[in-house]
Amino acid sequence: MVNLEESFMGKKVVITGGLGFIGSNLAHKLLSLGANIVIVDSLIPDYGGNLFNVEGVKDRVRINIADVRDRNSMDYLVRGQDYIFNLAGQVSHIDSMRDPYTDLEINCRSQLSLLEACRHHNPEVKIVFASTRQVYGVPDYLPVDEQHLLHPTDVNGINKMAGEWYHILYNNVYGVRATSLRLTNTYGPRQLVKHNRQGFIGWFIRLAVDGEEISIYGDGTQKRDLNYVDDVVHAFLLAAASEEANGQVFNLGGEPVSLLEVAKLLVELSPQASYRLVPFPPEKKRIDIGDYYGDYSKMRAVLSWEPQVPLRAGLERTIEFYRRYKEHYWE
Amino acid sequence: MVNLEESFMGKKVVITGGLGFIGSNLAHKLLSLGANIVIVDSLIPDYGGNLFNVEGVKDRVRINIADVRDRNSMDYLVRGQDYIFNLAGQVSHIDSMRDPYTDLEINCRSQLSLLEACRHHNPEVKIVFASTRQVYGVPDYLPVDEQHLLHPTDVNGINKMAGEWYHILYNNVYGVRATSLRLTNTYGPRQLVKHNRQGFIGWFIRLAVDGEEISIYGDGTQKRDLNYVDDVVHAFLLAAASEEANGQVFNLGGEPVSLLEVAKLLVELSPQASYRLVPFPPEKKRIDIGDYYGDYSKMRAVLSWEPQVPLRAGLERTIEFYRRYKEHYWE
Repeated sequence: MVNLEESFMGKKVVITGGLGFIGSNLAHKLLSLGANIVIVDSLIPDYGGNLFNVEGVKDRVRINIADVRDRNSMDYLVRGQDYIFNLAGQVSHIDSMRDPYTDLEINCRSQLSLLEACRHHNPEVKIVFASTRQVYGVPDYLPVDEQHLLHPTDVNGINKMAGEWYHILYNNVYGVRATSLRLTNTYGPRQLVKHNRQGFIGWFIRLAVDGEEISIYGDGTQKRDLNYVDDVVHAFLLAAASEEANGQVFNLGGEPVSLLEVAKLLVELSPQASYRLVPFPPEKKRIDIGDYYGDYSKMRAVLSWEPQVPLRAGLERTIEFYRRYKEHYWE
Repeated sequence: MVNLEESFMGKKVVITGGLGFIGSNLAHKLLSLGANIVIVDSLIPDYGGNLFNVEGVKDRVRINIADVRDRNSMDYLVRGQDYIFNLAGQVSHIDSMRDPYTDLEINCRSQLSLLEACRHHNPEVKIVFASTRQVYGVPDYLPVDEQHLLHPTDVNGINKMAGEWYHILYNNVYGVRATSLRLTNTYGPRQLVKHNRQGFIGWFIRLAVDGEEISIYGDGTQKRDLNYVDDVVHAFLLAAASEEANGQVFNLGGEPVSLLEVAKLLVELSPQASYRLVPFPPEKKRIDIGDYYGDYSKMRAVLSWEPQVPLRAGLERTIEFYRRYKEHYWE
């Protein structure tokens, strides 16, 4: 059993994308465990980085504004670190189709640069990479386990697949220890909700908070699994602290739920809101993956991870957070 | 049943990497079928492009020296073409580990550029992409079919995997018809044999022709499947001409044979040569994949493809070719 305090107390940690949604929640948690944190983030507009995400702790972390595409900065920043939580990425599927080159630069080239930097300047580091269920594409069967073929349906999924495999490769060939977590839909405080190009859940929550109408594409029966961000943070910490996780890929996952059920729950929690079924816009339909939910039994077996926060409780906390700090996330 | 003359007579065809090994053999064959051919090749030293490969036909093809990384050239060159045989690539596994960025540029970014060019300037074209069995990494089982998980063991394998999936994606999302062939070890006339960083078979053949000693790593029992280049060319033509192949990935493959058997056969055909078992050099061992041979039953079922040239006959023809034209390939 991993002892997280022991693993992180006094340890040097870099979080790429650390001003973003999951990265900043990770920073808050790591601070409480006594880690020394460097946040690396480029604050690219629209990507999810938000200085308010470290409000309250910004004097206790070092914030280094830099782009992971910048090799020289990364060469310097990885030195002497114990852990790198590698969450910087372009995460919008839609944007990846509009501008595949930028997605390539960030999700492929930057990952290579980071790994080369570690290989040459800090081969002792442990890296945990934020991958995505998008690498699976349209599921051949459900729930999707790690034996499922990878056949991504958008540029983002392809590039994240490559980025993930660079990590596994550098683990296997150069001994730069790395673990990849294939995240499913994560939600919670500090998520980007400025626009709707980063998945449905943040946008649904925003509409609920605003008491507006939630549009659900199709008949609303599409199933997804959602993880509350604290559970995802916990998964990152376990993966980082465990030697058994080195060179491994793990699915996260949770209870399957339909989009309609999510919308109903949100309307229950924020009664001024409502929902409506609308036809699929063609550009979304083309890259839609139908039902998806993951099998996380490998994660449970190897790392004793299981999601702890039920959907209703998680959504409640999230809505409360945004009601309170709306001005910092809406714009 | 596909009629190749009908499919290619008078048709406009681009072959990227067309001065290389497989590309040039494809050009010779397509000429005989009456196609109008543009060869696009950048003649990067060490990559396989060789002007002698089009000796005898160079006045009947258009040779356009350009790099597939050059977006503007590609935007122009794809226009009005009926078929693109997309063979340009960095193919050395060893080189991809030494310089992962160049491999990324050529095997990922250039593929995106080509596909974007087709999407915008020639969405009617049909593309056949040269992928590789390297995307599978160390086999989980043998023979390897297309349902086998992809877990490449070198940067080249990862980037080729991404390049392949871009093609499938553009087929599925934008209707730019594309097929990917996962090649195994191809051998035959016009192969690069200047250095030993592009797979064992070309190098073994060179040593055999020179009457030198062939070094086999390990105990020589590692199995591979080899395809004579004419069979591979045939596969490309069938894939291009078949609508059923659109959006599909196919393994090529052949009879499994041990490296020791290959060496023995070569020594039989070139009796001054000899062979010797030597320990694995560490940098090769780290990215070695053990036994590999592919299951090509999908290719047989959908495209009626089957290798026609037995190993002995293919090696005989190849040795004869190099004896005759040695000066153009040795350097």
